[in-house]
Amino acid sequence: MSDNNKLTMVVFSGDMDKVFAAFIIATGAAASGMEVTMFFTFWGLKAIQKGNLTGKGFLGRMIGLMNRGGIKRIGPSRFNFGGIGRGLFKKMMKDKKVVSLSELLQTAIELDVKLYACKMSMDVMEIAKEDLIDEVSGLIGVAGYIKEASESGITLFI
Amino acid sequence: MSDNNKLTMVVFSGDMDKVFAAFIIATGAAASGMEVTMFFTFWGLKAIQKGNLTGKGFLGRMIGLMNRGGIKRIGPSRFNFGGIGRGLFKKMMKDKKVVSLSELLQTAIELDVKLYACKMSMDVMEIAKEDLIDEVSGLIGVAGYIKEASESGITLFI
Amino acid sequence: MSDNNKLTMVVFSGDMDKVFAAFIIATGAAASGMEVTMFFTFWGLKAIQKGNLTGKGFLGRMIGLMNRGGIKRIGPSRFNFGGIGRGLFKKMMKDKKVVSLSELLQTAIELDVKLYACKMSMDVMEIAKEDLIDEVSGLIGVAGYIKEASESGITLFI
Repeated sequence: MSDNNKLTMVVFSGDMDKVFAAFIIATGAAASGMEVTMFFTFWGLKAIQKGNLTGKGFLGRMIGLMNRGGIKRIGPSRFNFGGIGRGLFKKMMKDKKVVSLSELLQTAIELDVKLYACKMSMDVMEIAKEDLIDEVSGLIGVAGYIKEASESGITLFI
Repeated sequence: MSDNNKLTMVVFSGDMDKVFAAFIIATGAAASGMEVTMFFTFWGLKAIQKGNLTGKGFLGRMIGLMNRGGIKRIGPSRFNFGGIGRGLFKKMMKDKKVVSLSELLQTAIELDVKLYACKMSMDVMEIAKEDLIDEVSGLIGVAGYIKEASESGITLFI
Repeated sequence: MSDNNKLTMVVFSGDMDKVFAAFIIATGAAASGMEVTMFFTFWGLKAIQKGNLTGKGFLGRMIGLMNRGGIKRIGPSRFNFGGIGRGLFKKMMKDKKVVSLSELLQTAIELDVKLYACKMSMDVMEIAKEDLIDEVSGLIGVAGYIKEASESGITLFI
């Protein structure tokens, strides 16, 4: 049964601007009294990683190195200029007194937003449970996501 | 309460193909008798900007220059080739008698599609109310978007 | 009327990781007993093309060559390295015994997932009905998509 007081989003992207939009929507909805579930998958997993290097095999380590996780390492999808973009964006947001990604993640946690990690992506990218922040609500598969989404009035893929 | 006769979309992308898809869906839904709300945020704001240069500080002007707004300046996400892509795409669409982005925007306005601009993105990117086309229905924050989305049967993030 | 037992997604992207996520969600939902509709448009059409070269005019052939279709030719949105990325990704997924895109497409067909192609995109990109795999359920326009989506509890744009 659909419950319009619930929002479920897939956070697939690991780009700063999209992760930012995801957390703004998630915390905004939670602040409005909605029940919010974020399902982090693929590149989106970066947002809930601790930030240590990951991977065991050669390919896993390579992905871990090139796509290193951690909410503070996330860069914007445009104007990255080899890292300058992230700094620029952060500076503009700070100048405008917009909250940072780290603060948004903290707010989401305080507002009881559920943070689920996609088990299959973790397997493929060799990201272990220990590589994720402690506040993650659990590791689930697609069936778990479908259950959450089918109960939600708002469903988004970001 | 969810109303299946309503569609709310976030237009986050400023890429021509995605903005095109957004307007095709929006006008198609409105033509089918649905109530449609488009919430333009981040790069998507370009679609409802007049096209003048924006920004006051150094960073704002830089963003305004590199990411200049206006529905006619929007280019496709692939095959851009430093601007050639947009022309090519436009030519193919014209050859096939597909409507242009400008016409789609006009149609959306005529079909009473609500066009909202994201206040926070405008602040961050230093885009002023005067930089937006007059037909914009208003500037709202995430709470306004959540309200619209929670009343909608179809919710999309583009 | 919204039916929470139905999921409708737009597959706009032609990037391997996103197409992969789309099929994982589609087959997962269908396996959970949901009615699933995938609407392939723009770059997403690649996933349901046979893989032959397409296009008649010069521009159509050029698009057909640069953006050649077929589920086996689809590459990831990051780390493509001129084609290496796709191989790397495939290898990692194979090492982890994750199903391939081709297998996922086959599973979707077996689970009666409806595969619709966007008529307008096909016209613009000069992709003919014969260029699509035989299992495509039909060619529809935006009105057809809106009808499906307005009956769905879960709507996604990928």
